[in-house]
Amino acid sequence: MNSLSPYQLRQQIRTGLFSGQTSGLASGYVQCNMAILSQSWAAEFLLFCQRNPKACPLVAVSEPGQFLLPELGKDIDLRTDLPGYRIFRHGKLTDEVQNISALWRQDLVSFLIGCSFSFEDALIAAGLEIRHISEGKNVPMYNTNLPCVPAGRFSGTMVVSMRPMKPADAIRAIQICSRFPAVHGAPVHFGAPEAIGIFDLRSPDYGDAVSIQQDEVPVFWACGVTPQAVITQAKPEFCITHSPGHMLVTDLLNTSLASF
Amino acid sequence: MNSLSPYQLRQQIRTGLFSGQTSGLASGYVQCNMAILSQSWAAEFLLFCQRNPKACPLVAVSEPGQFLLPELGKDIDLRTDLPGYRIFRHGKLTDEVQNISALWRQDLVSFLIGCSFSFEDALIAAGLEIRHISEGKNVPMYNTNLPCVPAGRFSGTMVVSMRPMKPADAIRAIQICSRFPAVHGAPVHFGAPEAIGIFDLRSPDYGDAVSIQQDEVPVFWACGVTPQAVITQAKPEFCITHSPGHMLVTDLLNTSLASF
Repeated sequence: MNSLSPYQLRQQIRTGLFSGQTSGLASGYVQCNMAILSQSWAAEFLLFCQRNPKACPLVAVSEPGQFLLPELGKDIDLRTDLPGYRIFRHGKLTDEVQNISALWRQDLVSFLIGCSFSFEDALIAAGLEIRHISEGKNVPMYNTNLPCVPAGRFSGTMVVSMRPMKPADAIRAIQICSRFPAVHGAPVHFGAPEAIGIFDLRSPDYGDAVSIQQDEVPVFWACGVTPQAVITQAKPEFCITHSPGHMLVTDLLNTSLASF
Repeated sequence: MNSLSPYQLRQQIRTGLFSGQTSGLASGYVQCNMAILSQSWAAEFLLFCQRNPKACPLVAVSEPGQFLLPELGKDIDLRTDLPGYRIFRHGKLTDEVQNISALWRQDLVSFLIGCSFSFEDALIAAGLEIRHISEGKNVPMYNTNLPCVPAGRFSGTMVVSMRPMKPADAIRAIQICSRFPAVHGAPVHFGAPEAIGIFDLRSPDYGDAVSIQQDEVPVFWACGVTPQAVITQAKPEFCITHSPGHMLVTDLLNTSLASF
């Protein structure tokens, strides 16, 4: 699996040969979170993303009904090329499937949202340790009291991911991630977790806790779970997202997202 | 005029004491292009901006009917605080006014779009010469054959502004402007104008021609005239823009837009 190109990996997914998480696969290529909403909700969600670019960095937005996205990769079909989809009705998870062709409608608009895998790739390339990767875990994620800027029916607080680092490494990470506004950009906070409404780092709201050394500070990034949380709260009649960790793997190189 | 704060300048504009161009005023502060569309056109235009961030970098988007924008500055009222407005009906310029209070409607959505003044400020601070400023002219702007990514009823080609520079200065300008994605970002082209469909640099489509020295290359930036040109082509029933050069002066520092 590890040696497949993004296109080959998507073919395996489409034909049902692979349905696992995509973390670590097609190394070096952009993976995207996805949210699909009906046209009657899409304009407000687009505005929400425009107003909250750190939590909801848009890589692409489809036309209504469009399921092919050639600008993101050869032959990409959003209905079949993700290894897992979640179906939400009125804000409730009602189904988890590997193919949404039967659910497709002409009024559906797809939002492809940048993901932390891309900046982690750049941090690792710079020689920084990413704790949850070293420890073989999912990144720890936390609800915060940081308000998102509301747009229409969408509002809520930011979800953040956390990576512990020595201050000098945190400084380097801030520099590197600032180059990647399309994948959450620079961190939003470091140090005192209670300042952003997090009271126990050992109990993340999503993902796994990781160890933090005495000489390290927690560094917090806006997280792609935010849009999913906000959509769930807004309770649209119908919504499809990727299953956690089951991302769209594109043909775009992570390095192509660097703004500098 | 030169020494007024953005707030003081807006008060002069609102009370009719100033109705001139804003170039060079409230130095150091972000000025914005503006386009106002009815809600029935706004969602498609928002998508157009998302897909063409270099030509249409959004600084803020209002709610329908919202004319106060406190996040951009103290007491900002979009109906009165620009020194000139253009009214378009079905794509045709029908009026030019200094106050749009009487035209305001609850379905109007305002788009505030970054402007080159902000990055020129950063280039000057870095010691670079901006030719049209040295020569006391408007920046030369050209239609190109570079296609914008269409969205709904909005499509067209990019308009660019041009500043001649020695190659070493152009390289420095590329570095500096890359830090400012909210105000057009890095240039889109340099050198051979015919490669992007410009056949006579001495005849700009908008603004004034400037001198180019033997050892200089023309450097081209995506220009905020693009969204106006695209809107005019799409012919919405009703649209308001700022009058050329008569921008919204905000309380945001140009330096606050730097991504790095």
